[in-house]
Amino acid sequence: MQIVNGKAEGVKIAYVGGGSKGWAWGLMKDLALAPDMSGTVALYDIDYEAAKRNEKIGNTANRRPGCLSKWSYKAHKTIDTALRGADFVIISIMPATYDEMEVHVHLPEKYGIYQSVGDTTGPGGIMRALLSIPMFEVIAKAIEKNCPEAWVINYTNPMTVCVRTLYRTFPKIKAFGCCHEVFGTQKLLAKALDDLLGIKDVARADIKVNVTGVNHFTWLTEATYKHIDLFPLYRQFVEKYKDGYGRSTDETWLKDHSRTASLVKFDLFKKYGYIAAAGDRHLAEFCPGNWYLGSKEIVDEYCFGLTPVSWRKAALDQWRTGESFKYASGEKKLDLKPSGEEGVLQMRAILGLTPDYVTNVNLPNNGQIPNLPKDAVVETNARFVSGQVTPVFAGDLPIEIYPLITRIVAEQEMVVDAALNRDLEKAFIAFANNPNVCLSLADARKLFDEMVEGTKAYLTEYFK
Amino acid sequence: MQIVNGKAEGVKIAYVGGGSKGWAWGLMKDLALAPDMSGTVALYDIDYEAAKRNEKIGNTANRRPGCLSKWSYKAHKTIDTALRGADFVIISIMPATYDEMEVHVHLPEKYGIYQSVGDTTGPGGIMRALLSIPMFEVIAKAIEKNCPEAWVINYTNPMTVCVRTLYRTFPKIKAFGCCHEVFGTQKLLAKALDDLLGIKDVARADIKVNVTGVNHFTWLTEATYKHIDLFPLYRQFVEKYKDGYGRSTDETWLKDHSRTASLVKFDLFKKYGYIAAAGDRHLAEFCPGNWYLGSKEIVDEYCFGLTPVSWRKAALDQWRTGESFKYASGEKKLDLKPSGEEGVLQMRAILGLTPDYVTNVNLPNNGQIPNLPKDAVVETNARFVSGQVTPVFAGDLPIEIYPLITRIVAEQEMVVDAALNRDLEKAFIAFANNPNVCLSLADARKLFDEMVEGTKAYLTEYFK
Amino acid sequence: MQIVNGKAEGVKIAYVGGGSKGWAWGLMKDLALAPDMSGTVALYDIDYEAAKRNEKIGNTANRRPGCLSKWSYKAHKTIDTALRGADFVIISIMPATYDEMEVHVHLPEKYGIYQSVGDTTGPGGIMRALLSIPMFEVIAKAIEKNCPEAWVINYTNPMTVCVRTLYRTFPKIKAFGCCHEVFGTQKLLAKALDDLLGIKDVARADIKVNVTGVNHFTWLTEATYKHIDLFPLYRQFVEKYKDGYGRSTDETWLKDHSRTASLVKFDLFKKYGYIAAAGDRHLAEFCPGNWYLGSKEIVDEYCFGLTPVSWRKAALDQWRTGESFKYASGEKKLDLKPSGEEGVLQMRAILGLTPDYVTNVNLPNNGQIPNLPKDAVVETNARFVSGQVTPVFAGDLPIEIYPLITRIVAEQEMVVDAALNRDLEKAFIAFANNPNVCLSLADARKLFDEMVEGTKAYLTEYFK
Amino acid sequence: MQIVNGKAEGVKIAYVGGGSKGWAWGLMKDLALAPDMSGTVALYDIDYEAAKRNEKIGNTANRRPGCLSKWSYKAHKTIDTALRGADFVIISIMPATYDEMEVHVHLPEKYGIYQSVGDTTGPGGIMRALLSIPMFEVIAKAIEKNCPEAWVINYTNPMTVCVRTLYRTFPKIKAFGCCHEVFGTQKLLAKALDDLLGIKDVARADIKVNVTGVNHFTWLTEATYKHIDLFPLYRQFVEKYKDGYGRSTDETWLKDHSRTASLVKFDLFKKYGYIAAAGDRHLAEFCPGNWYLGSKEIVDEYCFGLTPVSWRKAALDQWRTGESFKYASGEKKLDLKPSGEEGVLQMRAILGLTPDYVTNVNLPNNGQIPNLPKDAVVETNARFVSGQVTPVFAGDLPIEIYPLITRIVAEQEMVVDAALNRDLEKAFIAFANNPNVCLSLADARKLFDEMVEGTKAYLTEYFK
Repeated sequence: MQIVNGKAEGVKIAYVGGGSKGWAWGLMKDLALAPDMSGTVALYDIDYEAAKRNEKIGNTANRRPGCLSKWSYKAHKTIDTALRGADFVIISIMPATYDEMEVHVHLPEKYGIYQSVGDTTGPGGIMRALLSIPMFEVIAKAIEKNCPEAWVINYTNPMTVCVRTLYRTFPKIKAFGCCHEVFGTQKLLAKALDDLLGIKDVARADIKVNVTGVNHFTWLTEATYKHIDLFPLYRQFVEKYKDGYGRSTDETWLKDHSRTASLVKFDLFKKYGYIAAAGDRHLAEFCPGNWYLGSKEIVDEYCFGLTPVSWRKAALDQWRTGESFKYASGEKKLDLKPSGEEGVLQMRAILGLTPDYVTNVNLPNNGQIPNLPKDAVVETNARFVSGQVTPVFAGDLPIEIYPLITRIVAEQEMVVDAALNRDLEKAFIAFANNPNVCLSLADARKLFDEMVEGTKAYLTEYFK
Repeated sequence: MQIVNGKAEGVKIAYVGGGSKGWAWGLMKDLALAPDMSGTVALYDIDYEAAKRNEKIGNTANRRPGCLSKWSYKAHKTIDTALRGADFVIISIMPATYDEMEVHVHLPEKYGIYQSVGDTTGPGGIMRALLSIPMFEVIAKAIEKNCPEAWVINYTNPMTVCVRTLYRTFPKIKAFGCCHEVFGTQKLLAKALDDLLGIKDVARADIKVNVTGVNHFTWLTEATYKHIDLFPLYRQFVEKYKDGYGRSTDETWLKDHSRTASLVKFDLFKKYGYIAAAGDRHLAEFCPGNWYLGSKEIVDEYCFGLTPVSWRKAALDQWRTGESFKYASGEKKLDLKPSGEEGVLQMRAILGLTPDYVTNVNLPNNGQIPNLPKDAVVETNARFVSGQVTPVFAGDLPIEIYPLITRIVAEQEMVVDAALNRDLEKAFIAFANNPNVCLSLADARKLFDEMVEGTKAYLTEYFK
Repeated sequence: MQIVNGKAEGVKIAYVGGGSKGWAWGLMKDLALAPDMSGTVALYDIDYEAAKRNEKIGNTANRRPGCLSKWSYKAHKTIDTALRGADFVIISIMPATYDEMEVHVHLPEKYGIYQSVGDTTGPGGIMRALLSIPMFEVIAKAIEKNCPEAWVINYTNPMTVCVRTLYRTFPKIKAFGCCHEVFGTQKLLAKALDDLLGIKDVARADIKVNVTGVNHFTWLTEATYKHIDLFPLYRQFVEKYKDGYGRSTDETWLKDHSRTASLVKFDLFKKYGYIAAAGDRHLAEFCPGNWYLGSKEIVDEYCFGLTPVSWRKAALDQWRTGESFKYASGEKKLDLKPSGEEGVLQMRAILGLTPDYVTNVNLPNNGQIPNLPKDAVVETNARFVSGQVTPVFAGDLPIEIYPLITRIVAEQEMVVDAALNRDLEKAFIAFANNPNVCLSLADARKLFDEMVEGTKAYLTEYFK
Repeated sequence: MQIVNGKAEGVKIAYVGGGSKGWAWGLMKDLALAPDMSGTVALYDIDYEAAKRNEKIGNTANRRPGCLSKWSYKAHKTIDTALRGADFVIISIMPATYDEMEVHVHLPEKYGIYQSVGDTTGPGGIMRALLSIPMFEVIAKAIEKNCPEAWVINYTNPMTVCVRTLYRTFPKIKAFGCCHEVFGTQKLLAKALDDLLGIKDVARADIKVNVTGVNHFTWLTEATYKHIDLFPLYRQFVEKYKDGYGRSTDETWLKDHSRTASLVKFDLFKKYGYIAAAGDRHLAEFCPGNWYLGSKEIVDEYCFGLTPVSWRKAALDQWRTGESFKYASGEKKLDLKPSGEEGVLQMRAILGLTPDYVTNVNLPNNGQIPNLPKDAVVETNARFVSGQVTPVFAGDLPIEIYPLITRIVAEQEMVVDAALNRDLEKAFIAFANNPNVCLSLADARKLFDEMVEGTKAYLTEYFK
């Protein structure tokens, strides 16, 4: 890779999980639209055929109208050849299958435990972590071997434990985790500016925030727009929309599994005085189970969706049998519009091709949040510039939200430690103490054992 | 005060709450039995007559068989004269009356919230803190004015917030808080040595422990007896007595409001791998309400008592109309046996009259528990020697119990801050988030308002 | 102040030290060139006439070619009226007179102590701190009273102790300190890019650095340009120019009191492996006196200038009797070119008028450098955005330079504490331990006493 | 090993450096006088014959009058057999020979650098560290292999780096380092009590101190005797003996290489306000070279001895050709008096045979001194009880002495890191910055290279 006339040439990007759908295609579009980078993209996936289709799709992008830079896509059969010499590595994988996810999300229901997403925390998130961590160990070792200097961007959930595993396995890795959940709250604040002050069309990125916490349980402790402090404004907004913002009686809306009226977010603001920044479906899962997920009625009252895995399966089937083949065959064509993700922008900033760029990412805590445990993975702003990704100092967590976040950090640290040591007993301690596992120790044990049994095809590492 | 021939003469002890019963009489006995100290005890109490009776009782101690040192007792009408020039100050007060405590403990029951003690945390403990903190501000200021160099020993609950208030009001105060809850667990470990290894008559103090956490929610992270690690032994003990240790079907036992079969303690050990060190009645109140206090049935299952305030009232009446007058009139006489409390031993250690002495006390966190907030009051071992009370380094809380304790530390910090600022709204945030307040925000609000209303005679500071 | 159509109108800037020359005129130019701000500038100076002349000069700026925004300047007789309602406060004062500075810089020479600047550390810097700190207390109190919400920018030396005093006096102040010393090293790195790699015309701001340490003793622990790590390059550069970079035999150069050939900087790099970022004249003063300032010969060997106060006096006289009057009378006219200072850019960023902006400033350490004492004022990067100035996390100081900086931080903390308590004895401890005070305790005492005597007209606060 | 009737039987102690003289014989005496321990002592030494003689000497102790417990001594030819199954390990070795020490101590004199001891810091101490660290790696690995659960007591200098190496090599080692330098200052304070207050015969251990810092550069931040604060008393004492305490014009005294009049200690107290706790000969070496070691005249002025290695050699010769053989042959007999060392007392405390016991030892910093780097080895009090050695919390270093100690901690961390990585260049950075290496970078390099050359027979690890 070299920079010639302000353009980076010969950049090598390796994509682990390169047979994926949405994320991969989004990257293809963003790369095609990057005016100052070109090179190759190595696609690796355990489903080689899917990677092969994406190779085809990617290579057509060069011929699409609006393409500003040319990239060569290639599917690889081994992770080693895909990673070798990479400048950047993207990790976006789906651990196990939706059958395991069905166990993660729905099996707990018979114990009265509901989950809105089930991939980050709660019984589902913890079990998913147990599947994912050994995979991330493999990936980290392959990066150490093939491209130790590469910048590594993870998009896979559960974000925190995946990034933590990368660092525990290869401590010098230059990895960070990206998630756009915070953007939604910035947009909500822009809407409040319009709604209450008549200031229109404020761009999300112009809402300046201090981000703190952990992925999907991020909080804003400061939010400003120009000289305006947005906290008093948000308080008014929460009062005004005490029955929900954006709520609808429309059938489609009511059936949308990702719907939200921000009532969880508003409730947390009333309780703690700080702005919870992830979406309601994620936020609910980090709170004591009886608050927002105690029953379907409570969920309805707070007006957010529980995403059933059957819906995910249907979507996957449609894609498997449809979209991917159509794009690969040329029947459908990529439309080169920005994906809204920041990955390509981050790469350009790291290559020194853009001005200073600050956004929120997941990194090990070296002290950017002094009152959280060192090395735990946290989400704060970071500065992206030439060859440097440096956290912006987020400061101590306010005492009000400190216990909410220490609790989840401890859970995640225990889960990673348990998984790296292949110690299901230790994992169970974290599981039994999860706020959404409102069960006796004996029932928690039963549920845990059933979930292990139901996903054991992907837990073989623990039974060697 | 001076030390002559190895004896401290002219020691002045001020006793705030000096009209009390058990505590004051215990002190009288321990002082009479201290061979190397003598001086005066100034008794101050808002119930002057009670202090006056204790003056009489104390002065009779000098003539009791076994008395080794003479002390002169005197009741004072003002806190200033009582404190003036004191070398030591003891604080053991009862904030408000049992009528307020009835509100604290029993009013929440109509919302399904049970409390086994109700004086430390939970709705009762938080409301009691709101009453107590302004009183401790007054005491701290009086100490600063009259005896800023005195060593101050607090026995009053809620221990943590009372000691914290002393330091926030007069930062240079030399105060610590004493509580003997941990002793019970040392005794339990001694019983395990006998039960499982046949090692008999081990003294409590020979069970060496690393104490960490906060008062009434203390934990042991190390426990040894000579060269024996007591953790594996305790694990065996917990297995053996999985239905409870010391449990009885005896009617008297079953009616004892302070009974325990250590089942909460054992359950916490199984969940976390560390030894919870306070009694079950206290431990239960720091955990999510549905674990041990969810219903009377659950309480029965875990086999501990809920102490009704009616029982306390009856005991108080008996004392008021009886014991105190009988002792004061000479009808009954003090029997000079050691009280089991460590206060006098601590004073002697501070005066350099004993060998090095290590015991657990409550002190501001300067870093003895590095992963808890600085300045929060924590309970760890401390070294008592001539003129110095120095924490023993307890180390980071293990990750397993870290979130349990960060949660309560944050609650207590918020409550103290709220009370010092006379800000009931801020206090409500802590209240609504208490693990035993398993209510919706709206119900939490109702309960809080009712409790404020029910105790407002003693909350006048908040309505000025 | 309000923002209308993306422009800030009615901004009030108060300038303490508003009779100054260079700094004030630079601000006038930068304000005139700011396209999106307008308002008033209140000038306060103990030399009211000088402020009055600046009022006139400032008001002419509005009529100069190139002026983009109009500002109204007004001299004030009291600091209170100047500050009242200010949005921004600039502090740029000269404590005492050049007669005191003569004592600070030259009196120590009779003890063999040379100083290249004498305003930051060393005997001169410490004595200057003792003069300045009581003045900054007055300013901090006036800000608290008149404009507690204002953003305060300090340019006065000794930077660290002045900013520290502002925060100790008024803890909620929103102050930071600005200094452009680091820019010089960024420029040097740009020159190295040209010299060794032929990359020309790299802008200073495109050299991306991680700044750490304290003002005038700042260090770079990372430096990159696009994808290029500048540390290996700098190592080559230091080798190549081992006899000095930019050195000249030219008479003018040799007589220039601010000349440098970067030999101190290079030597420090060879010793420690990190890039010292201030100019040689400042760096030398933070090191043990015998390293670079042990004699005039050593100074010549390292090829930097010692700035005599006589030269400063001559420059001042010229200004007093000349420039200022000429500008005020209209004989000379302001030439509207950017000053190179960042103050106006920072204000615009704080008002949300610019993109995210990262630069190095002096702020209390909340943990941005975890292994330095909390609250000490440190210099790191900070993010300037709408209503927020947030440190970028600098990380632990590398162990190699850790003791160099802990030493000076401790000195500065002691000096501030001594001055706020008007305790010259405590100040002497810091003085006697300064690395450039290579004297016996007795001689250090003599020097200290003589310096106090020589500047006592401005130390009256200490003798009340 | 087991405890029977309150006595520890079958204790195995391994002694690395078991051919030593004073230390080994002291241990033999203390063991013989321990009423409640018995077992075996395995002696390992690279000089097997010396160990063999000590085997004989040790075994005679059992028959000496006053012997209270029997121990069996045995010399071993390999470290593995010596360590296997040990309960305690003692390390007291002499790295390299006195010829290397001659280089360490005297070669720097030609550069004007004097050293009073030369084994801890300064050019001599750093070079000695480079020799010792690889040896301690070997020892740590052997302990991990043969007796990972053993308690390890190190007496070897340079104490800090040796203990640090043990922990860096085998992180779970249970090691601590012992040194009695602090005792001398406790005795001095007892003398002050007699001298100024007429309080006689105060035992050293009754002077209660808070110890902080690093070995041989320890400081007391609190010192009390019963209710007496010893700081004001010490201030008086320092004033009274401003020309030295215990100074003599006696020839023998003047020729004593270990003489001291405490003038360095007193000077440091005057400069910093805290009590330096090691002996003057050690203290001087941690300070800037020109303070106390700038010339022989300055040394004489401060009235302490420089210990020449020739004297050590003579003493060694005498021992080699004399004492050891005489004891081994039975010509001389051990006199069973306590050695004054605390090793056996510490072992007994760890076995739970004594009451709580607090003394100062060297341990990794887990936070007992919060403002020093984590994991650096520091010296503070620690509590010795059954199976636990726990630091007493020493608190933040006072700001006055903080930079003195951060400097040496950084040096020691760099030296250990350099040695473990066999990186002499990195070691040189520490060397060149040592306060007693008052040389230009070029001269420091020359000295370093000469010292490496002069000791290279023992630096082979660095040239592989």
